[in-house]
Amino acid sequence: MIDDLFAVVLAGGSGTRFWPASRRLMPKQLLAIGPEPDSLIAATVRRIESLVPAERTLIATGVHLLDETRRVLSWLPSAAFLGEPIAKNTAPCIAWASWEVVRRNPNGVVMVLPSDQHVGDPQAFLDAVRRAVESSARGPITTIGLLPTRPETGYGYIEAGAESSPGVRDVARFVEKPDRARAEEYAASGRHYWNSGMFFFRADVMQAAVREHLPEMAAGLDRVFSLPPAQRARAIAEEFERFPSISIDYGVMERARSLAVVPASFGWSDLGSWQVAWELASKDAQGNAAPAGAVLAGARGNLVRDLRTDGRERVIALVGVEGLCVIETDDALLVIPRERSQDVRVVVDELKARGRSELV
Amino acid sequence: MIDDLFAVVLAGGSGTRFWPASRRLMPKQLLAIGPEPDSLIAATVRRIESLVPAERTLIATGVHLLDETRRVLSWLPSAAFLGEPIAKNTAPCIAWASWEVVRRNPNGVVMVLPSDQHVGDPQAFLDAVRRAVESSARGPITTIGLLPTRPETGYGYIEAGAESSPGVRDVARFVEKPDRARAEEYAASGRHYWNSGMFFFRADVMQAAVREHLPEMAAGLDRVFSLPPAQRARAIAEEFERFPSISIDYGVMERARSLAVVPASFGWSDLGSWQVAWELASKDAQGNAAPAGAVLAGARGNLVRDLRTDGRERVIALVGVEGLCVIETDDALLVIPRERSQDVRVVVDELKARGRSELV
Repeated sequence: MIDDLFAVVLAGGSGTRFWPASRRLMPKQLLAIGPEPDSLIAATVRRIESLVPAERTLIATGVHLLDETRRVLSWLPSAAFLGEPIAKNTAPCIAWASWEVVRRNPNGVVMVLPSDQHVGDPQAFLDAVRRAVESSARGPITTIGLLPTRPETGYGYIEAGAESSPGVRDVARFVEKPDRARAEEYAASGRHYWNSGMFFFRADVMQAAVREHLPEMAAGLDRVFSLPPAQRARAIAEEFERFPSISIDYGVMERARSLAVVPASFGWSDLGSWQVAWELASKDAQGNAAPAGAVLAGARGNLVRDLRTDGRERVIALVGVEGLCVIETDDALLVIPRERSQDVRVVVDELKARGRSELV
Repeated sequence: MIDDLFAVVLAGGSGTRFWPASRRLMPKQLLAIGPEPDSLIAATVRRIESLVPAERTLIATGVHLLDETRRVLSWLPSAAFLGEPIAKNTAPCIAWASWEVVRRNPNGVVMVLPSDQHVGDPQAFLDAVRRAVESSARGPITTIGLLPTRPETGYGYIEAGAESSPGVRDVARFVEKPDRARAEEYAASGRHYWNSGMFFFRADVMQAAVREHLPEMAAGLDRVFSLPPAQRARAIAEEFERFPSISIDYGVMERARSLAVVPASFGWSDLGSWQVAWELASKDAQGNAAPAGAVLAGARGNLVRDLRTDGRERVIALVGVEGLCVIETDDALLVIPRERSQDVRVVVDELKARGRSELV
């Protein structure tokens, strides 16, 4: 364990991709969508607890999610939770967390982790994290770059330069989501990595970068942290009103002077859809991932999830269907082909249009 | 109304084809599976009430179904219900009903109707029934033969002979379920009709036919009806133990001397599967039959039924799926392609094999 190491877990997701499981008040990170029995955020916090103890773990989430997030991370001290008054993308909350860490420990080193990803090989993950922490402790803001396993057009890429120390490379540039041809080029290049959304930095380095690139945000945070603790929550709410909605990538990283990337591979998945949940799930010989009691006859490659909480026994029977997601909650049932599972947002949009906000 | 006319509605169905809606204790005829809001049996009784009043309507059902059957036919007198102690196919219960009718009215004419069919044109149905009643009053056991609308291999056929009176033909013979080639021949022949399972006869004629062809059954029923009313239920139970399990077609009709058929066409359906329920249901422009609140996006030709009774609001969303049946009850969810809906029995078999008798 590194004494000065803090974790900031970003848990502000809006949660439409896993409807009907995910809702505005129950976004993906609070759900056990992956192959583990834990919620994704609990799995994220558990995954790093050998490096960062509970008292140096911060959870940045929306105020509307604070209660439920505290519930699934009940072993964390209540001071661990930073409630963002308004969703303003990642830069404001990472900046806020950096100020908070500097206040607690001027030598603090921060790892920022998304709360809703899957890691298949936790040991390889921790190895990469350690390397990134060491790199960032030497100065450069460091990211983890994932070795592409397919020409994915849905992610941003990091183009790496020379190796600066063993297992660490300079960042040549950040690249936006590419088109298909370019994605294929990147996947084959050996110097492009998926941007994992995991950042490592010395809190004072991030503070200096925010002062340089987002000076009004820095001034606002200085004002907040000059106040007595009891007045800070209200001051943060006022500042968030004014902050621009901007990502840390765009607001800081892409303009930063010294950046490093740790190339890594640890069975990572962004768990972006029911399709991916099926890919990661345990399946029977016919490729079905379903509750133990389900009746499956001539059914292949289906994902069945019974997420009802009313405790009533219910049998789910699939006969002769292939490649479907069948997802049940207390108040909704979704049937959608796996391969179209990213289209679940049309249901969310339709329910919003009908004024059925209780269902989204 | 014909004063001597009685109706015997056969309501002994076992109900696996509409699982999860139908159960051992809730077979098809007790469900509102068709396009009408009524249960099929209630629709059957209502359909003939201009011809047969409640006090001359008998309902033959299994003892285990008596309570629920009385509930959906609450306006019938309780003496209307004949509870079969054991399912022994149609001959024993039609014979029993014939003895009962003779006891009430020696000149009684009986129409026997299945309880679980759909009639699209009730006026044409009543016209055919009137013709069949008149024919049977003249002596011959009379059936309604339905004009085939397709080369169906799932039904028995009646081969008609000469016209004996307007709209009534002699029966040349009964034909078992044919193979495909023969079914095509029958459908085109102009003298083969589907056996509708509707029979019309003078009760004394049926009694004589049973005495001739099933003499032990006749003796048993004579014994029962020689007893005081209070002792008959127990005696019937004893006799049913001994009765063979045999259909009226095989036990009586195919051996009877004088048989007639009334060819007819009245939008009849045996409502044999969820597929047929979909065919008869009101559908939207995309061919979906679904509850009003359902969200259907790129979904075509689906049958969605929400038969839960817990009163909790629940949205059903189908995205990009085609030709599915999605059937929900309080304790089960079925997803099956419409065209395979006759395979629902594999689920029933599987649940029985697992000892989940509460679900079948």
